[in-house]
Amino acid sequence: MAFYRASKRHVPRFGSTAPAVLSALLRSALARPISTAFREERDTFGPILVPIDKLWGAQTQRSLQNFDIGGERERMPEPIIRAFGIIKKCAAKVNMEYGLDPTIARAIMQASQEVSEGKLNEHFPLVIWQTGSGTQSNMNANEVIANRASEILGYKRGEKFVHPNDHVNRSQSSNDTFPTVMHIAAATEVNFKFIPSLKQLHESLHAKSVEFKDIVKIGRTHTQDATPLTLGQEFSGYTTQVKYGLARINDTLPHMYQLAQGGTAVGTGLNTKKGFDVKIAAAVAEETNLPFITAENKFEALAAHDACVETSGALNTISTSLMKIANDIRLLGSGPRCGLGELILPENEPGSSIMPGKVNPTQCEALTMVCAQVMGNHVAVTIGGSNGHFELNVFKPMIASALLRSLRLLGDASSSFEKNCVRGIQANRERISKLLHESLMLVTSLNPKIGYDKAAAVAKKAHKEGTTLKAAALNLGVLSGEEFDELVVPEKMLGPSD
Amino acid sequence: MAFYRASKRHVPRFGSTAPAVLSALLRSALARPISTAFREERDTFGPILVPIDKLWGAQTQRSLQNFDIGGERERMPEPIIRAFGIIKKCAAKVNMEYGLDPTIARAIMQASQEVSEGKLNEHFPLVIWQTGSGTQSNMNANEVIANRASEILGYKRGEKFVHPNDHVNRSQSSNDTFPTVMHIAAATEVNFKFIPSLKQLHESLHAKSVEFKDIVKIGRTHTQDATPLTLGQEFSGYTTQVKYGLARINDTLPHMYQLAQGGTAVGTGLNTKKGFDVKIAAAVAEETNLPFITAENKFEALAAHDACVETSGALNTISTSLMKIANDIRLLGSGPRCGLGELILPENEPGSSIMPGKVNPTQCEALTMVCAQVMGNHVAVTIGGSNGHFELNVFKPMIASALLRSLRLLGDASSSFEKNCVRGIQANRERISKLLHESLMLVTSLNPKIGYDKAAAVAKKAHKEGTTLKAAALNLGVLSGEEFDELVVPEKMLGPSD
Amino acid sequence: MAFYRASKRHVPRFGSTAPAVLSALLRSALARPISTAFREERDTFGPILVPIDKLWGAQTQRSLQNFDIGGERERMPEPIIRAFGIIKKCAAKVNMEYGLDPTIARAIMQASQEVSEGKLNEHFPLVIWQTGSGTQSNMNANEVIANRASEILGYKRGEKFVHPNDHVNRSQSSNDTFPTVMHIAAATEVNFKFIPSLKQLHESLHAKSVEFKDIVKIGRTHTQDATPLTLGQEFSGYTTQVKYGLARINDTLPHMYQLAQGGTAVGTGLNTKKGFDVKIAAAVAEETNLPFITAENKFEALAAHDACVETSGALNTISTSLMKIANDIRLLGSGPRCGLGELILPENEPGSSIMPGKVNPTQCEALTMVCAQVMGNHVAVTIGGSNGHFELNVFKPMIASALLRSLRLLGDASSSFEKNCVRGIQANRERISKLLHESLMLVTSLNPKIGYDKAAAVAKKAHKEGTTLKAAALNLGVLSGEEFDELVVPEKMLGPSD
Amino acid sequence: MAFYRASKRHVPRFGSTAPAVLSALLRSALARPISTAFREERDTFGPILVPIDKLWGAQTQRSLQNFDIGGERERMPEPIIRAFGIIKKCAAKVNMEYGLDPTIARAIMQASQEVSEGKLNEHFPLVIWQTGSGTQSNMNANEVIANRASEILGYKRGEKFVHPNDHVNRSQSSNDTFPTVMHIAAATEVNFKFIPSLKQLHESLHAKSVEFKDIVKIGRTHTQDATPLTLGQEFSGYTTQVKYGLARINDTLPHMYQLAQGGTAVGTGLNTKKGFDVKIAAAVAEETNLPFITAENKFEALAAHDACVETSGALNTISTSLMKIANDIRLLGSGPRCGLGELILPENEPGSSIMPGKVNPTQCEALTMVCAQVMGNHVAVTIGGSNGHFELNVFKPMIASALLRSLRLLGDASSSFEKNCVRGIQANRERISKLLHESLMLVTSLNPKIGYDKAAAVAKKAHKEGTTLKAAALNLGVLSGEEFDELVVPEKMLGPSD
Repeated sequence: MAFYRASKRHVPRFGSTAPAVLSALLRSALARPISTAFREERDTFGPILVPIDKLWGAQTQRSLQNFDIGGERERMPEPIIRAFGIIKKCAAKVNMEYGLDPTIARAIMQASQEVSEGKLNEHFPLVIWQTGSGTQSNMNANEVIANRASEILGYKRGEKFVHPNDHVNRSQSSNDTFPTVMHIAAATEVNFKFIPSLKQLHESLHAKSVEFKDIVKIGRTHTQDATPLTLGQEFSGYTTQVKYGLARINDTLPHMYQLAQGGTAVGTGLNTKKGFDVKIAAAVAEETNLPFITAENKFEALAAHDACVETSGALNTISTSLMKIANDIRLLGSGPRCGLGELILPENEPGSSIMPGKVNPTQCEALTMVCAQVMGNHVAVTIGGSNGHFELNVFKPMIASALLRSLRLLGDASSSFEKNCVRGIQANRERISKLLHESLMLVTSLNPKIGYDKAAAVAKKAHKEGTTLKAAALNLGVLSGEEFDELVVPEKMLGPSD
Repeated sequence: MAFYRASKRHVPRFGSTAPAVLSALLRSALARPISTAFREERDTFGPILVPIDKLWGAQTQRSLQNFDIGGERERMPEPIIRAFGIIKKCAAKVNMEYGLDPTIARAIMQASQEVSEGKLNEHFPLVIWQTGSGTQSNMNANEVIANRASEILGYKRGEKFVHPNDHVNRSQSSNDTFPTVMHIAAATEVNFKFIPSLKQLHESLHAKSVEFKDIVKIGRTHTQDATPLTLGQEFSGYTTQVKYGLARINDTLPHMYQLAQGGTAVGTGLNTKKGFDVKIAAAVAEETNLPFITAENKFEALAAHDACVETSGALNTISTSLMKIANDIRLLGSGPRCGLGELILPENEPGSSIMPGKVNPTQCEALTMVCAQVMGNHVAVTIGGSNGHFELNVFKPMIASALLRSLRLLGDASSSFEKNCVRGIQANRERISKLLHESLMLVTSLNPKIGYDKAAAVAKKAHKEGTTLKAAALNLGVLSGEEFDELVVPEKMLGPSD
Repeated sequence: MAFYRASKRHVPRFGSTAPAVLSALLRSALARPISTAFREERDTFGPILVPIDKLWGAQTQRSLQNFDIGGERERMPEPIIRAFGIIKKCAAKVNMEYGLDPTIARAIMQASQEVSEGKLNEHFPLVIWQTGSGTQSNMNANEVIANRASEILGYKRGEKFVHPNDHVNRSQSSNDTFPTVMHIAAATEVNFKFIPSLKQLHESLHAKSVEFKDIVKIGRTHTQDATPLTLGQEFSGYTTQVKYGLARINDTLPHMYQLAQGGTAVGTGLNTKKGFDVKIAAAVAEETNLPFITAENKFEALAAHDACVETSGALNTISTSLMKIANDIRLLGSGPRCGLGELILPENEPGSSIMPGKVNPTQCEALTMVCAQVMGNHVAVTIGGSNGHFELNVFKPMIASALLRSLRLLGDASSSFEKNCVRGIQANRERISKLLHESLMLVTSLNPKIGYDKAAAVAKKAHKEGTTLKAAALNLGVLSGEEFDELVVPEKMLGPSD
Repeated sequence: MAFYRASKRHVPRFGSTAPAVLSALLRSALARPISTAFREERDTFGPILVPIDKLWGAQTQRSLQNFDIGGERERMPEPIIRAFGIIKKCAAKVNMEYGLDPTIARAIMQASQEVSEGKLNEHFPLVIWQTGSGTQSNMNANEVIANRASEILGYKRGEKFVHPNDHVNRSQSSNDTFPTVMHIAAATEVNFKFIPSLKQLHESLHAKSVEFKDIVKIGRTHTQDATPLTLGQEFSGYTTQVKYGLARINDTLPHMYQLAQGGTAVGTGLNTKKGFDVKIAAAVAEETNLPFITAENKFEALAAHDACVETSGALNTISTSLMKIANDIRLLGSGPRCGLGELILPENEPGSSIMPGKVNPTQCEALTMVCAQVMGNHVAVTIGGSNGHFELNVFKPMIASALLRSLRLLGDASSSFEKNCVRGIQANRERISKLLHESLMLVTSLNPKIGYDKAAAVAKKAHKEGTTLKAAALNLGVLSGEEFDELVVPEKMLGPSD
């Protein structure tokens, strides 16, 4: 029996690529426990061999052979696989209401539950770079769940007692299922991982802002010395940025909660029953504890992924915030002797084998690298989002994977930064005080007393001679040391006057 | 008398660049009515010559000479100039409450009003590419308003009876004024130009969606023939995209309504009086009829421009929507003989001197070009937004100009597209019907009657022989012509079944 | 004994995060064969437990615990690991010339060889998102190679008979080693994977261009019918794009062949011997068969990654080419009945279970998704590249991983597209001919004979009445059928006249 | 007579927009010298009124009314207008060889010359956002040159004695002319403006590198203190970046020198004579003194703008270089008291009215803002470049304008940065020396003498107690003051050892 049977039209082509396909299979076989045997699965293209220990079927196998792009690292992200478990479970549940055999429905629900828990991950070998509708991953889910459900009911893999299309995919098309899965995966990650990470970062920054509220320091504008503020005020700016970031990501959720399911092939809902769309959204909402609803316009929901571009845009804005914060922290922590040195960052690993105090701001570095990647992914998502044609956008897996990667990385990096950096930041009070009091710009406080011209003379003299303002003022005889000490008080320069 | 006097430290440098500066001045002089004379203005750097017919002062002149980047096309956008007029008027009004001489305050308000109406645009020669705090444009506004207000009160230009810093800029720093101006300009453009344009586009698309609601056509997924929908349904997808776009841009306004004014140099509000920030935001709100408020955290408002990144992100998402819509429309209107030909687009100009019916989708082209530029500007704004240092982000003029350009272009292009394309789109009913009825995928309706296998045989025969489904069905003898006509009814394939 | 010992300064912090770290360890332990035991390794921070079956040491373990970002999918790309094998082997070889004990050197070379062959991949668990200098991955390589070399010489892991710093990392700093590894990995991937894939695509497109050289078809500009060309000419445009793409990627190699090795910590080469840099570049060249040389300026080589931005830029340009080509092919292959239908694309998988001829252009979809991701990665690389500070750019792992991912995906997708799509494209000659002869724009050929006005009248009549040009011409009586047939010959419209 | 006559099909639409069009005309009329009268011009759409003092014709006027997008600031860039002058002059010259009446040809050449010199700029009112082929700007050029040439020959505007299409546009199509103009404009700007600016910057950086070659300073990696280098070495890194940038932009020129002219409508060259393409490229080469040649594949040259994406990519890489350099310079110049303070930047304008020494690094700010915009424009160009369809890319004006704007801004900003910043940079030798000698990392030099452990003890003590290394060493009694001074010599740490 042939390894697989190709479409008649292209026998020569398949013939010539067969060795490559085989070697690809061998390669992946060598990289992991070897499948010692195959079983035959079939689809409308005919029979094809599938590793006997895998639950997937013919269409998954075909995709595996036709899309040898990027290898294992490029597999469809796990949150997508889990979301497939959720949607297939809900579909079976709702389909039961519309007449699907309860025995079959319950077996599908059980198998889907396993998928949603990540227990069957090894049976989802397909990469992101496949058909742009995600059809092959939808079929992967249908095939795995059908075979698993069949087994649960005592039937064999490949027999299709539970049928991947007729039962598991009932009332669904890849075209509405995949965008639904994208939204479930993204909304779940946003709510249960990303927002908690960002909230924790917000809390830590706020705690630092309070901790540092009485530490007066030099301000810097244009990277140049400016009027003073407290270190707490400086951190309050960071805190506010993250707080608004939370608002921004939250603002995008209403569109993300809209589910395409029920639109089927082109958005009309052909081959579903009235009410199916509302019921399945309700089922997903119940399953996930998130307020999913059916999309008010299914044509938009299939043909565009503006909701994903929007959410990616919020991550992009949050990345600009975090890039700024992390940059400030590493510069304020620069030193120990030849930098600004106002902050002491936690030491998490040897910075250097010889130099004590050399603390590399590695958490800032990891975070800013993530921010740059998120900004790049946002461009990828934008380009994908703008390239839909007619009734379908076929950049779905790329959009989903880039968005989910951004969410994961930005959430994890925020957590890591919070735990391993922000939480342990200490103020170098001595250094802060020294810089503050050396600063020439405190001369501003003398204006009301001695006038602009004399104040300027004091400052110029101090700058030219490299002395303190006080020394210059005394030297010029414009006021006494006591007067100087009474007037030049940075603590009085921290807000509007009464 | 020297043309201008340079900082002593850099005499040689200035000496050597003088010819270049002169020739730059000459160049711009030649391009417009020639300034036949100069007057002397001065700042802390010393005296400098300024064209006698211009209201600007020394600092503006210095910027003009130091930033010869891009020429006249790169001048600070007009909405920024107008917003300077608004904020300076409001500042004078509030400063009057805090003790500014009412005569001077009223003259400032009158001069500022002229700026806000665009009457003094020629006195704002500075380009975007200057100091990153926009200080020089703030000083340009201060100088022009001071000179104009002085004239109003009967004094001469350059005499500083009304002083640019002490009076016009009172209680302000460039560092809080420029971000305030950015927000006023952006919020004004969003509300009074961009949203109305987008709303009009939404209405026209919606009207088309209603007009076309009974025209059944072939659907296309993966650019391939799929199940039918109505042309109205297809347009309803576009309508929904634009509707959500309106929601997206609206969602960004609350952050844009927060004004930095009152934070002065580093966000502390040094040199302002308590309550100044709240009062001036209220004055701007009254002046503009928009709900501006004072920023809850001035440190964030100076050091970051996340609000601009956020708004730019909404424009980016809207661009993906409009790119998709315009692409669909040009492809659906492709032809007249060798394309899809389902839409007839308005003819606005000769497409070709010889070929009737050659209507180039020029409005789609202008719009999609704008969308690409908006996506690019979004990256620029993102990079600028992420690069703040300490108490100040110094990418302000770039961020402002890119955002305002995106707003203007996307608004204008939406209007143009609406007026000159969408409004005049006609359905080519004959062509739509022909394609629909030739489509093989209507065979789907036969499944319940003759079963999957026979239906497939009908379709395969039709495809292979290039005939109609009906001919193939009759030829195979699987059902009668009447039966066929009763079953194959695209109008019944437009939604879920009961 | 404690699980690990923390820096004294931060005991409370470490204490509080310990459970998270443990659970992270447990999680990864559960996902793979469980490490049943640990051994102690130590660095200047003190002792730390490491899984007994792993070759890595203390610093790797610390990074694993401090950077819980993204999970296994985010591990440092394999080409980086392999390049570490190459550079460490070469370093040992050259260090031997400068006095490194030959026994140790040879053991390091053997262990490094295993790394370069991918045999020790499982011992490289670190993710991309770590310190921005890649120090931790460099230490991972040093530790793994030291332990493996020790074993080769009969010593135990952790005993440091072969020392990770003193022996394996001799004359090297992470700051010059990691950029060297980036260049080796990128240049290797470009030469041995990417260029061959692109060349194969070029050959296939060229073959199609030749195969289709006599098929005359309608041209399309603005998506509208235009004057004719051959399908071969159309494909020659694609061929040229790919040909130039090959030139573009080649143009970037000279900068990529420059190696930073020898610059050590800041570019000065402190702690190396004169000539080390030249010798090690020569050793790498010999090992890889690629013309690597030592960087002419090591300061640039550490502080900037312009060479990577440049190469990423070439991939970006190639992506615009491939996006255009794949878009054309899917649109020309659209149909089968309701699209353009000029191309017949290979069927690789069921497009639909019911509709014969429904061939989804899935290879075009995978390729265009990859192109979008590459464009996004280019922005990430650009942002990372612009953010170096002083003597070091600390976005190295992000830049490397994004560039390598783009190379891999674009190469693989080009191969897949070539094998599974381009190679099998057939022209639908009947359809092409039908469209060509229906086109109104052939009327252009009548101008010389009957004049512009009459020709226009013919075209307008045909357009209005939906007839052929010939019918319209005969009906208007402007020329005979024979005259028409002699004049209207698309084959004569394919080039300049004599 | 009607103001203009609309296509019959859309009378209602035109009717309703007429007021808007009028008000647009009025607006622009008010903004500049008022056109007091109109003349009638006509095209195949019928007659239309044109301002009597303008040379443009009917098609230009129609575009003006149909594309009210962005206003005057958005006019087609001047280098495009000038390039139209060049190509039309060359076309007339070559057409004369192929039979164009020499009287007419010479008048066209004279009129074109005026266009190429910028003398007729006011007659080119069209904006970038028009048809994506640039047809309307090509017709603008044809109309202006035809009217001007007619006047030269004693005929009136609008009479078409010299015909815009038959004479000026002879042997040309917009589809090959506009890309030709893009390449002429870009190559000219690159060669005559951009490269000279960048070269000047390179020279100044190199001069500084030499000037600073003996100043030893602390190095910084991860923003943390590291081993020393000279300030000259640091600047040599910048110099090398710019040097490679020059190589990068040069590498892109060969593709830019390929001209599309001769491809006409779809690339076949229909309606040209054999040899026309080669001759016109030669004529352009002669006219511009640049090595233009005819494109080897005209299909590629019309349907793709990969050459522009490539050149934009080089600008993108150069922007990452300049962003890094400008960032370093502003951080090294930060202070005067509370920053790094190693560089003294030229004072070009008052940084603050009170604080001497407050020098804002405004030139760095202008340059980095430009870099961000160039990176954004690169994304716009990339998106435009990837969106060609079939025989034509219709994002031409956007691609051209974004590329030309990037070239102009980056060139001008490099010049401004060079003249007003780099040239005047001074080293703060005292500060540099102070930081260097305070640095703890010089302890490295003690290792060979006292061993690692004692050296570490010295460094730790100095760090903990805030003293110098020397004080700590003496206090610990590990070596004498003389020994210390002999060993700790930063000047010996600047390169590899013998």
